[in-house]
Amino acid sequence: MKIKAGVIGATGYAGAELVRILSAHPDVELTALASRNYAGRSFSEVYPYLYQYVPQLCRALDVPALAGECDILFTALPHGHAAPVARQVLAAGKKLIDLGADFRFRRPEVYEQWYKVPHEAPELLKEAVYGLPEIHREQIKTAVLVGNPGCYPTSVILGLAPLLKSGLADLATLVADSKSGVSGAGRGLDLGTHFSEVNENFRAYNVGLHRHTPEIEQELSGLAGEDLMLSFTPHLTPMNRGILSTIYARLNKPVSLAAVRAIYEDFYRDEFFVRLLPAGMLPQTKAVTGSNHCDIAPVVDERTGRAVIIAVIDNLIKGAAGQAVQNMNLMCGLPETAGLDRPGLYP
Amino acid sequence: MKIKAGVIGATGYAGAELVRILSAHPDVELTALASRNYAGRSFSEVYPYLYQYVPQLCRALDVPALAGECDILFTALPHGHAAPVARQVLAAGKKLIDLGADFRFRRPEVYEQWYKVPHEAPELLKEAVYGLPEIHREQIKTAVLVGNPGCYPTSVILGLAPLLKSGLADLATLVADSKSGVSGAGRGLDLGTHFSEVNENFRAYNVGLHRHTPEIEQELSGLAGEDLMLSFTPHLTPMNRGILSTIYARLNKPVSLAAVRAIYEDFYRDEFFVRLLPAGMLPQTKAVTGSNHCDIAPVVDERTGRAVIIAVIDNLIKGAAGQAVQNMNLMCGLPETAGLDRPGLYP
Amino acid sequence: MKIKAGVIGATGYAGAELVRILSAHPDVELTALASRNYAGRSFSEVYPYLYQYVPQLCRALDVPALAGECDILFTALPHGHAAPVARQVLAAGKKLIDLGADFRFRRPEVYEQWYKVPHEAPELLKEAVYGLPEIHREQIKTAVLVGNPGCYPTSVILGLAPLLKSGLADLATLVADSKSGVSGAGRGLDLGTHFSEVNENFRAYNVGLHRHTPEIEQELSGLAGEDLMLSFTPHLTPMNRGILSTIYARLNKPVSLAAVRAIYEDFYRDEFFVRLLPAGMLPQTKAVTGSNHCDIAPVVDERTGRAVIIAVIDNLIKGAAGQAVQNMNLMCGLPETAGLDRPGLYP
Amino acid sequence: MKIKAGVIGATGYAGAELVRILSAHPDVELTALASRNYAGRSFSEVYPYLYQYVPQLCRALDVPALAGECDILFTALPHGHAAPVARQVLAAGKKLIDLGADFRFRRPEVYEQWYKVPHEAPELLKEAVYGLPEIHREQIKTAVLVGNPGCYPTSVILGLAPLLKSGLADLATLVADSKSGVSGAGRGLDLGTHFSEVNENFRAYNVGLHRHTPEIEQELSGLAGEDLMLSFTPHLTPMNRGILSTIYARLNKPVSLAAVRAIYEDFYRDEFFVRLLPAGMLPQTKAVTGSNHCDIAPVVDERTGRAVIIAVIDNLIKGAAGQAVQNMNLMCGLPETAGLDRPGLYP
Repeated sequence: MKIKAGVIGATGYAGAELVRILSAHPDVELTALASRNYAGRSFSEVYPYLYQYVPQLCRALDVPALAGECDILFTALPHGHAAPVARQVLAAGKKLIDLGADFRFRRPEVYEQWYKVPHEAPELLKEAVYGLPEIHREQIKTAVLVGNPGCYPTSVILGLAPLLKSGLADLATLVADSKSGVSGAGRGLDLGTHFSEVNENFRAYNVGLHRHTPEIEQELSGLAGEDLMLSFTPHLTPMNRGILSTIYARLNKPVSLAAVRAIYEDFYRDEFFVRLLPAGMLPQTKAVTGSNHCDIAPVVDERTGRAVIIAVIDNLIKGAAGQAVQNMNLMCGLPETAGLDRPGLYP
Repeated sequence: MKIKAGVIGATGYAGAELVRILSAHPDVELTALASRNYAGRSFSEVYPYLYQYVPQLCRALDVPALAGECDILFTALPHGHAAPVARQVLAAGKKLIDLGADFRFRRPEVYEQWYKVPHEAPELLKEAVYGLPEIHREQIKTAVLVGNPGCYPTSVILGLAPLLKSGLADLATLVADSKSGVSGAGRGLDLGTHFSEVNENFRAYNVGLHRHTPEIEQELSGLAGEDLMLSFTPHLTPMNRGILSTIYARLNKPVSLAAVRAIYEDFYRDEFFVRLLPAGMLPQTKAVTGSNHCDIAPVVDERTGRAVIIAVIDNLIKGAAGQAVQNMNLMCGLPETAGLDRPGLYP
Repeated sequence: MKIKAGVIGATGYAGAELVRILSAHPDVELTALASRNYAGRSFSEVYPYLYQYVPQLCRALDVPALAGECDILFTALPHGHAAPVARQVLAAGKKLIDLGADFRFRRPEVYEQWYKVPHEAPELLKEAVYGLPEIHREQIKTAVLVGNPGCYPTSVILGLAPLLKSGLADLATLVADSKSGVSGAGRGLDLGTHFSEVNENFRAYNVGLHRHTPEIEQELSGLAGEDLMLSFTPHLTPMNRGILSTIYARLNKPVSLAAVRAIYEDFYRDEFFVRLLPAGMLPQTKAVTGSNHCDIAPVVDERTGRAVIIAVIDNLIKGAAGQAVQNMNLMCGLPETAGLDRPGLYP
Repeated sequence: MKIKAGVIGATGYAGAELVRILSAHPDVELTALASRNYAGRSFSEVYPYLYQYVPQLCRALDVPALAGECDILFTALPHGHAAPVARQVLAAGKKLIDLGADFRFRRPEVYEQWYKVPHEAPELLKEAVYGLPEIHREQIKTAVLVGNPGCYPTSVILGLAPLLKSGLADLATLVADSKSGVSGAGRGLDLGTHFSEVNENFRAYNVGLHRHTPEIEQELSGLAGEDLMLSFTPHLTPMNRGILSTIYARLNKPVSLAAVRAIYEDFYRDEFFVRLLPAGMLPQTKAVTGSNHCDIAPVVDERTGRAVIIAVIDNLIKGAAGQAVQNMNLMCGLPETAGLDRPGLYP
């Protein structure tokens, strides 16, 4: 019997990507699509590329009704909006995966410090699991509430995890310089995502201030076994999809590239979605566009004693909707790659 | 038992797209990939996005060996190169779909006039079928040799077919103005496809001279029941994938939009891959990027008495590899949509 | 003594381009910048690329004050807003160039039919001149009120003028298929100009309905000496600047390319801004990006008996601000190329 | 009397940009254009955007003839090719500015280690000056041989110079993460700059190995007063022009943003081409596209104790041809901003 899934916030880019993936998922019945802006209208009128594939109408948000009809709900909402929904969904005995920030933090005060609003359901943080399967797979399998990671954090955490776990990195020297396609900024209108402003333009933003920073630090601290901070700088690059993170760490001692590669191979040996590229190849965002993969290559710069790790993802898939479906698969006892086992599109 | 398929010319963009689609096709075993430039190298080294999906090596071209191992072969080669291959493949009792121009023309002299070379296997033209399933489905089902349509012709022929069939168009007034993404020019290096020359640039080329013209005229003449000529102008637009054709025809008499739409609905009622958009919507290339669809909308300009038809395809899929797989499905008795039943990617 | 010029609507793309050109114009003092949205803020805060070049603040709209300080005013406003401004400016004895549609039409009923609003100052249309210098130079020299042409019309009219003047074209067969960069849609926010929606996408819009149609028809009718209609289809192409128009006309009789080229050479012999490209070359938008040029090449398709003319402009320069400055130069007795005598930028 | 200038290697992107700037320079006569690939052909046939502006033909390389006709020569050639030219030009008593790497290094062994070829004119390195005017202005004024900086180094050195000079940076912690538009890779054909491969793609390359590294280290060591090394990672971003460098340095002690800004203001107070942006604004590449500016903003991340400096340039102007003309102005006693005093183009 198929899992009944619903999407709340279905008409943003992350929501629509969920709809696309779920509508082709072999074990899922896409039961309900909720959208504040488009309630009552046909989903495929909002996203004509799905004409003939998604016959559903968008519905207004009625959480009890949705929880009644679905086994699992996805929320793709601005921060602060998922917490009250989660309380209702869990009370109804159903599962929830939030693609926003509401359930990513173990400590509510970190959320409140960076997001500048009180957390509306702090009691749920205890049972929420940070939904990065390559790091927290076993906990996700039994979770009822998952905070799906941010796009930037997914690339940075997967890029650094093996190195931090190995103890070879000087934790005081971590720098993550990330570049994102524009779809990561969503479908909401803003001068900063107006075509003529972004096209043929490259810029940094929120230097030292981006809200994904504490999420990265929480997870990397867990991997390193001690609290750490890093410098994180996001940039906007004139393309639709893709994140590339360039991550710098001083090595505690001289280590060969072969040794570092062995650490990464060991860490990701059984992972389908993380591809350690063959020696000599560097990741490029287009190689993961349309897929749930994270391609990684570590480089060792012997001159400066630094490791430089390059990691790429499709921000809407492994950085959002694909990872959410991967979490759903784990939570529902489905094969982890179900609905996600296709390569992307090139060129 | 799965169909054994091979691709000759697997490392160009159309060939690689065939590899991607065939490698995920439920009824196909991708048996052999031949590439002149990359023989002996891993396919996924040439196209890293397929790492872990396509383990095969590229092979040198040995037609008898390939014909021996495969049930059907695809050729994605420069014009003139498929004809000798076809002769060998058919002699070995196997089927062939050519994505180039060698088998698109009923009359060899048309080919020779536009392509400026003698046809190497004119005797095969009699059994070759023009592989546009929405027009020649029954013949394709029994064909052993298919000339897969060009990308521009697919959009123009599908866009005009219902109108020409209806007899409402003044055949002396046909104009097709087409705009293509850059992948249509292939992976070969040329100043005309160098990034900095194409990006932020829009240009026409081969005005009145493009080799897809006679192919369009052959098929449209067949639909109209009399010989016709049209003006065809191709343009290069700074994006990777997609063709949009804007097609103009004077109407023989005043006809309402509703009447024209009824003609199109009737013509394409049973077609999965052709989507007549709801009234009021216009096609856009991104809505078909990554899929085998052709989206169409006719407009009637009552002021000037013209019909203006907009048709879009993904040039590498419905305009090349996807259509070839659709033809293979028909030739091999598989469901016509097998391996092609997914929507594309947006945004 | 320098001409004192002011810009009303200075912070849209056309307005800002006026500011850029006027701030470097050798014979102009940029006296006042008015902007509804940014009144009181520094212009270079709104457009940081002009930091250190344009020290002015944006001002609120006070027409009498502006007319008092300036010799000539430019309006770059939504249609309907320039008419009342013009009345005040002319009453104050100053000149006005409107970059919008309010003064492009000789007959107010045409404006009202296409723009769906009453014209607010129909009495001024008698003295307004359509500001296409290559067609109306002598009238512009003595005008006090100029309706600056639309971007699409500039490319289509300049592309067809010599042919229509020659009497060689069948006036019932005119088709103009135009493609524009996104800056033509302005800086206002809209889903249709949101980066991720436009990038890697190509679409037609307002098929048969675009408001530039009557403007093109008015001018082409004047050139042909009789009323005509044409089919005009605008398209959006994923780049910032540039318009390319592909224009089709049946020839009344067989004419050689050499003869058609001679007609164009003759017509544009003394024009600095219109460049008839050498035989064998086709226009491309990037070759005029950043300049006030219109590059043109006619092609004769002997097979179909049609002329196909390709014309390109930078939509913000020859299609808006540059042409307005060219008009100002003529109206103020300055050299026609003053401030506009630089090539663009490539690549 | 005008300076007579010649360009050797005029048809690459940097050479063509020199031609564009010099052809509009008020104090320069563009005397000769040499191009190996296009000798005998009209320059404007190779770059049609300069049609009517640059009437010259491309000439073959004849150094004695060129040196005889010109006061100053620019070489825009692959590394290794300028050294023998320089020897001849200087012997003829003329000046030379090399846009390549041949005269950027004080020690030939550094050049030889990174470029893997012997230096052909090591004796000239003593009189060569590194042509970054904001750092070496006085030496450039009297130089006869200038090594024009690389594009990446210009952005990184200008970005870090004030901080290093101030002694506040921990020299062991320097990281420069740079992103470049594709024109920096030149006009030569390569799969890595093929449109469909680059568009919608973002990638790093030459991680830890790029040849601009020693050039950056040489100059930063001079500014810091001691030898230092940094990690430098270049990336390719899908746009034509622009470099943005994000530069990280640990601060030796807690310093406020205001204090860091004061250091930058002080350092660049009299510089026209370096624009320290107002507090709260961050540089973006498009704000310098088409101009010789370098826009800079330092940020202080108090959490991590790092300074993060963002610097942007147009890689073909301040990163190549514009800077070369700035050097020429200094060497020839012209106003430093002559021919370079215009803002760029936006959007």
